[in-house]
Amino acid sequence: MPQSYARRMDRVRPSAIRELLKHGADPALISFGGGYPDQRLFPLDDLRSVFDALLQPEQAASLQYTTSDGLPALREAIAERMTAQGTPMVADDVLILSGGQQGLDLVAKMLVDPGDTVIVEDPTFLGALIAFAPLEPTYATVRLDEHGMDTDHLAEVLAANPGVRMLYTVPDFHNPTGVTMSLERRRRLIELANEHGLVVLEDSPYRELRFDGEPVPTLKSLDTEGRVIHLSSFSKILAPGMRLGWLAASPELRERLGLLKLAADTQSGTLAMHAAASFIAGFDLDAHVERLRVAYGAKRDLMLATIDEAFPASVGRTTPEGGLFTWLTFPEGFDSARFMAEVALPEAKVAYVPGTTFFADGGHPNHARVNFSNVSDDDIVAGITRLGHHLRRELA
Amino acid sequence: MPQSYARRMDRVRPSAIRELLKHGADPALISFGGGYPDQRLFPLDDLRSVFDALLQPEQAASLQYTTSDGLPALREAIAERMTAQGTPMVADDVLILSGGQQGLDLVAKMLVDPGDTVIVEDPTFLGALIAFAPLEPTYATVRLDEHGMDTDHLAEVLAANPGVRMLYTVPDFHNPTGVTMSLERRRRLIELANEHGLVVLEDSPYRELRFDGEPVPTLKSLDTEGRVIHLSSFSKILAPGMRLGWLAASPELRERLGLLKLAADTQSGTLAMHAAASFIAGFDLDAHVERLRVAYGAKRDLMLATIDEAFPASVGRTTPEGGLFTWLTFPEGFDSARFMAEVALPEAKVAYVPGTTFFADGGHPNHARVNFSNVSDDDIVAGITRLGHHLRRELA
Repeated sequence: MPQSYARRMDRVRPSAIRELLKHGADPALISFGGGYPDQRLFPLDDLRSVFDALLQPEQAASLQYTTSDGLPALREAIAERMTAQGTPMVADDVLILSGGQQGLDLVAKMLVDPGDTVIVEDPTFLGALIAFAPLEPTYATVRLDEHGMDTDHLAEVLAANPGVRMLYTVPDFHNPTGVTMSLERRRRLIELANEHGLVVLEDSPYRELRFDGEPVPTLKSLDTEGRVIHLSSFSKILAPGMRLGWLAASPELRERLGLLKLAADTQSGTLAMHAAASFIAGFDLDAHVERLRVAYGAKRDLMLATIDEAFPASVGRTTPEGGLFTWLTFPEGFDSARFMAEVALPEAKVAYVPGTTFFADGGHPNHARVNFSNVSDDDIVAGITRLGHHLRRELA
Repeated sequence: MPQSYARRMDRVRPSAIRELLKHGADPALISFGGGYPDQRLFPLDDLRSVFDALLQPEQAASLQYTTSDGLPALREAIAERMTAQGTPMVADDVLILSGGQQGLDLVAKMLVDPGDTVIVEDPTFLGALIAFAPLEPTYATVRLDEHGMDTDHLAEVLAANPGVRMLYTVPDFHNPTGVTMSLERRRRLIELANEHGLVVLEDSPYRELRFDGEPVPTLKSLDTEGRVIHLSSFSKILAPGMRLGWLAASPELRERLGLLKLAADTQSGTLAMHAAASFIAGFDLDAHVERLRVAYGAKRDLMLATIDEAFPASVGRTTPEGGLFTWLTFPEGFDSARFMAEVALPEAKVAYVPGTTFFADGGHPNHARVNFSNVSDDDIVAGITRLGHHLRRELA
């Protein structure tokens, strides 16, 4: 209706996958497609008492405007918690966000001019590609294996792309693949970032959901020059419907990101920030996260065991040590989007996310992301078994 | 710390006024500077019962992810309410936002390429200038008088700036001046928008807070070609700490704005959206707004009467029929920022917002915005009287 739109709108398009998933709203469908936490595990009783206390007359400021950088008590609580977990920081380093997604938008706004190269993993988080699109980047992609981003390949990519400002990585229980970057590679990544003057956006919303093995230090804790921005969220450890995330960055970067936050939405929800701070102060977030670990770890075990039993041997999978997803690799030539539209949805009544959506170049059709956190045990067994049955037929 | 930032960061700077207000945090200070609603009027008892009902196990979806466009029940409630108030729309036209500020960011992203001209009122809402800055616009400004934007001047500005895509206006109880655009000018604005292919962003968060006179139809209700985007918010009629706003637009524009919303923060808070929808369904929002009208109307009366008594005759003011602000005009040559720093803050112990911050060109030093909604009656009388005393001395 206007004669034209801003040029960036050429890059802002509906996702084909989103459309596909919309059409699969059959009640018999078992969906491994989302990235939702299990809502039966939300700490509702504790939150009810938190909100009840906040909505008293003497607490009316809980519903008022507050500072754009976020509620000081919440910034303080996050800094203490992250410091205790091995990533030292102070409250001033923390910027509260309206979910982790907002951090992707703000950091890209700060660093990306149209046509600039952004380095991402191959594959990478779909939400990041969606957030970055309006900034009109060019992508350089780095290979990923079971130890995370391949830093030898990264060195080559950096050599071939001088002047890159920004690298984006999901080092812990990567979305979509579930893999975790090794300590050795993290150290190498920091060296390369220092050498090439990169800002590293470390997106780690699943980090606390580790089922086995030892935590690997955050990139932020290994950072020697204030170039890592650590991004995280309450969506997976408390509840996504509160829409709260945070980033931690050096003063120079945090100051700029705070100005962009003010421009984007003034501030995050005061009531939600008060609720998160009260929950951390008055209840046991660590014990809650431990319950999530046990529950999601059992679901992961069930899903991997069922895949191993039901799927043909030619389908590979990752072994995530935490998080919400595993990643399937089908034989070369297999098109997971076509298979979903023609077989998985109509016949197996199962949905997943075709892998191509996670690749910056839109290629690599022979993968799929499957979620285990928000599917019941019965549905994990039934859905994976049905999918296996049809995959055996297809790949026979 | 990176070697450079994206070019847009040259436009993203801390506001001098914000810094000034930060330094005025003296407990004896009476601040007319903010734009806050009165938190003593928040419907806390009703909201406590709303949240209590939402945080029960069978309502756990209140804390889960939901659709990016916003909770269907809330979009429906807003469409019904706006239709009843004379701006017909359906739920699909509505996009839920994380506060009205987010609408400014999204609409500018959709329409503004670097260097593009955006038409704004002179003065205009500071938050809009902050939201638009990262999009690197050029401004063309249109004069404003007691009947709102001067559409004769607008016609000249449009003739001098062919190809403009976007016009931004606050037609009801304008921020910062408090004036309301007349019906005749609204009609003329729509004619001009049609002639010149403009998209009009109608920002109307104060519209329901009318103290006297009759409501003037929204620009959206006068729109004949789907070119008006209506932007509003729950911040002034319910509570800003819930961080909920909305926009209503034609399907073509709303679709694109929804994609930008997804990119910016995935969705607004599910719990807050449920709470607003439940409040509207179960309580009486209209009666609540009526209480606000009575309370803020009385504060406006008190402020205007005190100004008329205490200020020298050479200081002009507007007579707002609603909203949160009145606008002062000092004699030519008076610098309201200097006066605040040198006299109002240290001697009168009173803060306001110097007018220059609201002008796209940063000029016009002889104005100030004063807020009455969030100041007690005693403080209105004491603060305005003290300010008047020092103004009389200064302007003698």
